[in-house]
Parts: sequence; structure tokens; C-alpha cells
Amino acid sequence: MSSSIEQIHNVITCKAAVAWGPGEPLVLEEVQLSPPQSHEIRIKVVSTSLCRSDLTAWESQAIFPRIFGHEASGIVESIGKGVTEFEEGDHVLTVFTGECRTCRQCTSVKSNMCQVLGLERRGVMHSDQRTRFSIKGKPIYHYCAVSSFSEYTVVHTGCAVKVSSAAPLEKICLLSCGVAAGLGAAWNVADIAEGSTVVIFGLGTVGLSVAQGAKLRGASQIIGVDTNPERHEKAKVFGITHFINPNDFEEPIQQVVKSITNGGADYSFECIGDTGMITTALQSCCDGCGLTVTLGVPKLKPEISAHYGLFLSGRTLKGSLFGGWKPKSHLPSLVDMYMKKEIQVDDFITHNLPFEDINKAFNLMKEGKCLRSVIHMPK
Amino acid sequence: MSSSIEQIHNVITCKAAVAWGPGEPLVLEEVQLSPPQSHEIRIKVVSTSLCRSDLTAWESQAIFPRIFGHEASGIVESIGKGVTEFEEGDHVLTVFTGECRTCRQCTSVKSNMCQVLGLERRGVMHSDQRTRFSIKGKPIYHYCAVSSFSEYTVVHTGCAVKVSSAAPLEKICLLSCGVAAGLGAAWNVADIAEGSTVVIFGLGTVGLSVAQGAKLRGASQIIGVDTNPERHEKAKVFGITHFINPNDFEEPIQQVVKSITNGGADYSFECIGDTGMITTALQSCCDGCGLTVTLGVPKLKPEISAHYGLFLSGRTLKGSLFGGWKPKSHLPSLVDMYMKKEIQVDDFITHNLPFEDINKAFNLMKEGKCLRSVIHMPK
Ligand SMILES: NC(=O)c1ccc[n+]([C@@H]2O[C@H](COP(=O)([O-])OP(=O)(O)OC[C@H]3O[C@@H](n4cnc5c(N)ncnc54)[C@H](O)[C@@H]3O)[C@@H](O)[C@H]2O)c1
Ligand SMILES: NC(=O)c1ccc[n+]([C@@H]2O[C@H](COP(=O)([O-])OP(=O)(O)OC[C@H]3O[C@@H](n4cnc5c(N)ncnc54)[C@H](O)[C@@H]3O)[C@@H](O)[C@H]2O)c1
Ligand SMILES: [Zn+2]
Ligand SMILES: [Zn+2]
Ligand SMILES: [Zn+2]
Ligand SMILES: [Zn+2]
Repeated sequence: MSSSIEQIHNVITCKAAVAWGPGEPLVLEEVQLSPPQSHEIRIKVVSTSLCRSDLTAWESQAIFPRIFGHEASGIVESIGKGVTEFEEGDHVLTVFTGECRTCRQCTSVKSNMCQVLGLERRGVMHSDQRTRFSIKGKPIYHYCAVSSFSEYTVVHTGCAVKVSSAAPLEKICLLSCGVAAGLGAAWNVADIAEGSTVVIFGLGTVGLSVAQGAKLRGASQIIGVDTNPERHEKAKVFGITHFINPNDFEEPIQQVVKSITNGGADYSFECIGDTGMITTALQSCCDGCGLTVTLGVPKLKPEISAHYGLFLSGRTLKGSLFGGWKPKSHLPSLVDMYMKKEIQVDDFITHNLPFEDINKAFNLMKEGKCLRSVIHMPK
Repeated sequence: MSSSIEQIHNVITCKAAVAWGPGEPLVLEEVQLSPPQSHEIRIKVVSTSLCRSDLTAWESQAIFPRIFGHEASGIVESIGKGVTEFEEGDHVLTVFTGECRTCRQCTSVKSNMCQVLGLERRGVMHSDQRTRFSIKGKPIYHYCAVSSFSEYTVVHTGCAVKVSSAAPLEKICLLSCGVAAGLGAAWNVADIAEGSTVVIFGLGTVGLSVAQGAKLRGASQIIGVDTNPERHEKAKVFGITHFINPNDFEEPIQQVVKSITNGGADYSFECIGDTGMITTALQSCCDGCGLTVTLGVPKLKPEISAHYGLFLSGRTLKGSLFGGWKPKSHLPSLVDMYMKKEIQVDDFITHNLPFEDINKAFNLMKEGKCLRSVIHMPK
């Protein structure tokens, strides 16, 4: 695929993978991308990987036509008015939840949920509630104000993080969402203690990143639960000590976990996107101090339900987006850890695909055949 | 009422308030009480107050005939085999959840949920699954293995806490459950930070004890929510800065709280016993780091339900019994604080009643006319 980029009045025409309707294969279209507005930057996307959240939104949400993609790396192409933090040529990671550095949440050490640049659900940019993408004047909606399934995209400066130009963009794009979310859930949200017991529901990139985090904290047992038997081998790489395929057991999974952990795990993590599993995760935790962290984004049934007694007897349920990391403040240090080989990222990449094969990435994930597929944009 | 206590083979015959069926007025009956078994003590109850948990269990549970009462003070009458920690004449508080000091939970600093002496729901003693009370050979069931609505009772040594004989038993019985549960929820479970905002659902003894705890921690706003307008005046005594009667508002309570607290409280507490209010409590908390603590024991609908997005955006739901205090390790220090006038207890006592008026205490609570009624046993 040769990308034909024309700049007219600073509008870029480039290729983007447009989703025209829920679950419909993406179509590579020529789209028009406005120049960055004030406090925005325009990025040439280098690599973007497919996260389950893209797939879930594509299958279940109602905003179309839309450009998905939020786990991405790229190079700054141009900057909008008032931008001093970035310049052309900077290497960046995008983030689906930003950091304005001034709101109540950004100024609190306890939270990473920026009130200004939080999840935008209506497919538009934070500043003016409009899109930057269009096809012949018709708006094409954003996803998480990132929309990286495009050769170029525009993001708010608070939703991009400058990273060392020495870091390989085709790998570290995974730190833009899934790997960071899992590590942060283990370290920031649960704050896993040495010697403790952990159970993880769902061993995709997010769940296995939790496992990696738990292993680095010295957890004594790391139990992984997944219905996909193919996850077993890969799980060992990331520190899973016990693999449970629910289909192999007659008894409820919480019973299996309780007998392995002598009464319940210290921590449990929901990394599937199934609210029913949050209940199982709570039941798999010990009385007194069991902590369940929920990370999944459900496709169905958004309501969590659980017996009050699970809480009264001392359990805690906590959720997190992006692992509790403040993206600008913390993401560069994760990139550093990767560069020093203190954390693994490469092993999550099971497939490398050119942009025109993006639908293959969607199919691989739907079929449970991949961890992360990295989509490489034309040079 | 004159109590006729006969001791035959060390069995005591005394008066107890027996509940013969759900919601039926208690009947003062002559009951037989066995001597304490190994690791048990027999207590002469001095004062016992009525907690909402007694009322809820009396209205909704299925185990009868039964002797309720768990918030109590008394004096050791005799000790069972192997008891070295107590002797005749010791002043004690009973506790509804014990501390064995040896199980996984008791040896963890993070938990007070003893695995050995936890809530016993079947109305029997922990050691042998039998009752100590009977009427003419027919067993009368216990409640929380305490059953203090009786002149004498038998409890496990792990469910009694020795206290200073200088402390007035007719007041400190409130520290045996409700007041300690509320203070502990504020201090141990939520660990309320200075200057933070708090909303409390339900301003009975438990909710107002949370308020007292929040005030002592220097919370800047303490919002109290109660449908009973009579709670307003008393609420001020315990530090409530804003009183909300939901019946006075058209908008949902979470909106009212959000506008008072600029986006949501830092902490919310459910002290009613209504699982629907737990959802409201979560919604009343701020994104990012809002913490909801649930203390209530519901009469209806044991399932909590809440949208996953409340958690993903950074909220935490935690529950606790007895405010996270390990009873033996921590309760004596609460008694000390009371003696030094560092915490208020007396103001919760709205009624003092002789044992024969125990049904009046039940009626006062059902009608929302009391905080705590203390029932004084015959001398
Ligand atoms: N909170 C956050 O910040 C954040 C960030 C990224 C992703 N997510 C969410 O986390 C979840 C996981 O993301 P991912 O990219 O790792 O997805 P993934 O599809 O790679 O992994 C999900 C795993 O769950 C397994 N699974 C599915 N149903 C199961 C069941 N009933 N029992 C056991 N295992 C089951 C699958 O086999 C798969 O291995 C998704 O819901 C995603 O939207 C959240
Ligand atoms: N977790 C624990 O360790 C523990 C200990 C003691 C009591 N409890 C439980 O805590 C709860 C409170 O106990 P208490 O003794 O203070 O009870 P209480 O009856 O004195 O107080 C409850 C308050 O809630 C108010 N209320 C009722 N419905 C309401 C509604 N819909 N909206 C707003 N307010 C409403 C009532 O007017 C009352 O003031 C009970 O469920 C009790 O069983 C728990
Ligand atoms: Zn993602
Ligand atoms: Zn912010
Ligand atoms: Zn109580
Ligand atoms: Zn114990």
C-alpha cells in the first residue's frame, strides 16, 4: 500500500481504517484530517496494536462511522497553537485517558482519572466536541480521542506522552494501554505484597501483564484462569504457577481457587470483560482482606452483582483504568524499565501485520488466536 | 422483677427474653444455662443495648426459639476448663465476632475476620455446634454466640474482652458493637484523611459513630443522609455539617452530594442496611479515588448491584464488620479513649429501660424513636 498524503491548507489526506457499522469489517478509506487545534498535536502513527477494548466497542457501541485504535506509538508531525511540550519529530505514545495536570484528579496523588481528558465516549475531541477526521465533509468519529488506525491522527497534548527516541516504537506501543494497565493494576492498584497469592481471570495481554507484575513483586502463587487452552504455555512465560481451564472442572472455580490457596487468594483480577466473573473473582478471594481488582470492559451486562456478605466479611472491590498510572508522569519510566529489560513486552506480540491486514488482527482476537497483533503503518 | 437463680449441678436457671418466632414480642422465660465448657466463660450480664442487627435478624431469620442481644457488658460469673485469661469478677464486653489469635486472619494485620470465631449463623456455639440455653431440655438458640438478652450467658473466651473495672458498664456496652463499628469504619477501614469530604447514609448509632470518627479526623464536610427528620438535631452533636432528608429533594441524592462536594465525596458510608443505598453511596463518591464503605446488614435483597463503570473510573467498595477492629487487641484502647473523654458514647443513649421492658426497646427502634436503648439487668 502506498500512502498518498496531500496537504491542502494543512489538511492531510491519508489512509484510515474506517468502521462503518458495528462488527462490520473495517474499510481502508482516504480520510481528511484537520490540522491540530490549539493544545493538540498531529501524529504520524508508526505502530498500533489491537486491544480487546477496540474490539468490544466495535462490536457493541453505536457511534459510526468511526476510526478505532488507541494503543499506539508515533512521531509528531505538527503542533497546534500554544503547544510547547512537543515539537515535530518527537516520539510519542498515545493514551486513551489523558492527564491535564491541573484538575482535582490530576493534582491528587490518589487518582489518575483526569476530569478534563477522561474517556470521551461520544467519538469527538475534548476541546470542541467535534471530529478532526472527515470524508468529503462528513465527520468520521474518534475512539478515545486517539483513533490510531490511521496513518495520521490528531490528539490532545494531554493524551500523548513523549518517550525516548531510543525506544523501539514497534514494540513499546503495547505500553500505551494493555501492558501498562496490567502492570499498574498489580503494582499501583493492588500493591501486591511479597509472598501473597493471586488469581487472574483472563490471560490475554492485560491478565498476563498482571501476572508479570505479580511475579516481579514476589507473589507465591499466581493462578491463571482461562477457557482457552492455548493460553497455558504462554502463561508460564509470565509467571503463572497454576493454570485453570474452567471447562476441566466440575466444581465452581472459586472452590478450586480456595483449595489451592488455603481459603482464598489475597488478590483477584478480572481481565476478561465479563461482569459475572467479577462475582467469581470476589468469591475466590479470602475473607478479611481479599482484594478484587476489575479491569475488564464488558460487552454485555454492565451491572456487577454480588452478595453483601462478601464485602461485610472484609473484601474490597476496586477498579482501574490504565492501571492507576498518570500517563505523563509515569509512562516514561515504564519505557525505561522496558529498555533496561526489567519488564517484558516483546513476548506479548504474537503477530505483526501490515496496515492493510488490519481486519486479520480483529479476526485473530475474536478467535482467541493472538495476544497482541501489532499493525505496522506504511513508512 | 426479682431474679431467682438456682444452681443445680452448676446449671443456672435465670430469666431470658426468648423470641419464639420472627417478629413476635419477646417473652421473659425461665431458661436453663449450662456451665461454661472448656475455653468458655459464663457472664452475669449487666447492661445490653439494642442494635439494629438484632432487630433485623429477629424480623427476618429462621432460627427460633432464640435469645437475641450482642451489644453487652457484664461480669464473669464462672470460667470453664483451660481458661486462664479471665477470672470470676472480671468486667467484660462481649463481641459478636471473636479473636482466636491463631488463625490466618487473626495473625494477619490486615484482617479482623477470625476464621474460628466468626459470625455463627446457626444459633449454636462455635466449639460443639450446640446451645447452652434450654427450657426443660428443649434447646434455645444463640445469636452471634453472645445472646445477651438474658441475666446470664455463656460465651467463648475469644468473644469476650476484659475491660477496666473503672469503666461504667452501663455505658460502655455500646462499644461492644455499634459505636466501635462506626469509629473503626472511619479510622481503620476508610482511614479518613484530614480535610476530606464524607457522606453517611443512615444516621443511627453506627452512622453517627462514623460521623464522630470523621470529625475527629478533621474531615471538612460531613454530609448525613436520613429519611427521619428527627435525626437532624442529634446529627449536629456528632459533627454532621449538612443534613439531607431525601424526601425534601426532587433530584437524586447523588446529585445533591455531588454539588455540595464539587464532584463527589472522598468517602461514603452505608449505615442503613439497604443494598440499594450502596449503589447510591458509590454514585455519591468522586471518580478516581472515591471509597465507599458498607456496614449495613440488609433485611431484604442481599445482592448489591452497580454499574462496572463506577469501579473502572477508580471507585472502591469495601465492607467491614466491627470496624476492622480486632476485638481483643483493640477494644480496651477504645474504652480508654472513652474514659479520657476522647470519644463520646453517652450521647447515643436515648433510653434506659429495665429488662422487663425489652419489647419497648424493639418498638422504639422500629419506630425510629431512639438511637440506643440500654437495657439494665436486675442487680
Ligand atoms: N482497565 C483498563 O485500563 C483496560 C485496559 C486494556 C484492556 N482492558 C480490558 O481488559 C480486558 C482484557 O483485555 P485483553 O486485551 O487482555 O483481552 P484478550 O481478549 O486478549 O484476553 C481476554 C482473555 O479472557 C479469556 N476469556 C474469555 N472468556 C472467558 C471466561 N468465561 N473464562 C475465562 N477466561 C475467559 C480469553 O480466552 C482471553 O484469553 C478487556 O475487557 C479489555 O477491554 C481494560
Ligand atoms: N458492620 C457492622 O459491624 C455493623 C455493626 C452494627 C450494626 N450494623 C448494621 O448497620 C446498620 C445501622 O445500624 P444502627 O444500629 O445504626 O441502626 P439504626 O436503625 O439506629 O439506624 C439506621 C438509620 O437509617 C435511617 N434510614 C432508614 N432507611 C433509610 C433510607 N431509605 N434513607 C436514608 N436513611 C434511612 C433510619 O432513619 C435510621 O436513622 C444496620 O444495618 C445494622 O445491622 C453493622
Ligand atoms: Zn486498551
Ligand atoms: Zn486532569
Ligand atoms: Zn450490632
Ligand atoms: Zn482467629
